[in-house]
Amino acid sequence: MSQQLDQGLVSIFTGDGKGKTTAAIGAVVRAAGHGLRTFVIYFLKGKDYIHGENTILSRLPNVSLASFGQEGWVDRENIKPEHREQAGLALATAREAINSGDYDIIVLDEINIAINYGLIELDEVIKLVNDKPKQVELILTGRYANPKLVQMADLVTEMQMIKHPYTQGIKARRGIDY
Amino acid sequence: MSQQLDQGLVSIFTGDGKGKTTAAIGAVVRAAGHGLRTFVIYFLKGKDYIHGENTILSRLPNVSLASFGQEGWVDRENIKPEHREQAGLALATAREAINSGDYDIIVLDEINIAINYGLIELDEVIKLVNDKPKQVELILTGRYANPKLVQMADLVTEMQMIKHPYTQGIKARRGIDY
Repeated sequence: MSQQLDQGLVSIFTGDGKGKTTAAIGAVVRAAGHGLRTFVIYFLKGKDYIHGENTILSRLPNVSLASFGQEGWVDRENIKPEHREQAGLALATAREAINSGDYDIIVLDEINIAINYGLIELDEVIKLVNDKPKQVELILTGRYANPKLVQMADLVTEMQMIKHPYTQGIKARRGIDY
Repeated sequence: MSQQLDQGLVSIFTGDGKGKTTAAIGAVVRAAGHGLRTFVIYFLKGKDYIHGENTILSRLPNVSLASFGQEGWVDRENIKPEHREQAGLALATAREAINSGDYDIIVLDEINIAINYGLIELDEVIKLVNDKPKQVELILTGRYANPKLVQMADLVTEMQMIKHPYTQGIKARRGIDY
């Protein structure tokens, strides 16, 4: 229980621009460097998510990872029971982690999308945030942050896409975009 | 010279919101995990910058760091010769790194501010970006990105502050904010 924060805030990185998850990962690396115990829960990136950032992240001390979801991006028009099940598991993992006393900073990656797509209940997330131990810091990422969560958060950054290479026909590149 | 990118883009993270440098660091961690060779040049954070993110970053394979500037934030109204000298050194380091063939991704942290405050010449940065080897990826961070650079960039994200704890009187916290 060492190194805990006096006051863990709630931060949200949202918007359509690039940098939401990467900003959360950057925050985790910084915090882990200070000996804070961090846990990143990927809600949607797939059970087998082993991106470059994970490979190297999982080697760092004070960094734990858990990954849920189906491979490939969730299609809002084609939600399957497995999507709900996986997001529910992610939320249960988050709840346990938040209340465990084992972590100072917990990233809930793409939880905003999971709520917006109806994979998990907004009310359950609100309760999770409301009831969290004071010293636990939460970072919620993903587009479409719910206004109620924005209102509850201490820090909200909207990443706005001014320009994106995909719109110029440049494809996602391994090691950079995924 | 292995693992090089076919096409290195130019990305800019700007705006007044939190997450610009952290997003760049997150991108570096991801890329390093894929074996890409990365170099982060801090233009303004001080020669002795040894924040948490550096401590742990410098331990990762494929990550190099260099730091310039004076301790403490640069006051636009009180620019000293040392500020210009340090920013000039950072730019020279960037130029050498970009042309060395030793790095796939180079982060120019707070270079936008350095330009905006007149510590380095915009034209020199434009030339640097224009003349870079095709396969080198650049990430420029900092508020006040110059419109000419925004025009040249492939990807631009503006981090907009929607809410920030400092405005609520909460102070910067070690391990989280610095």
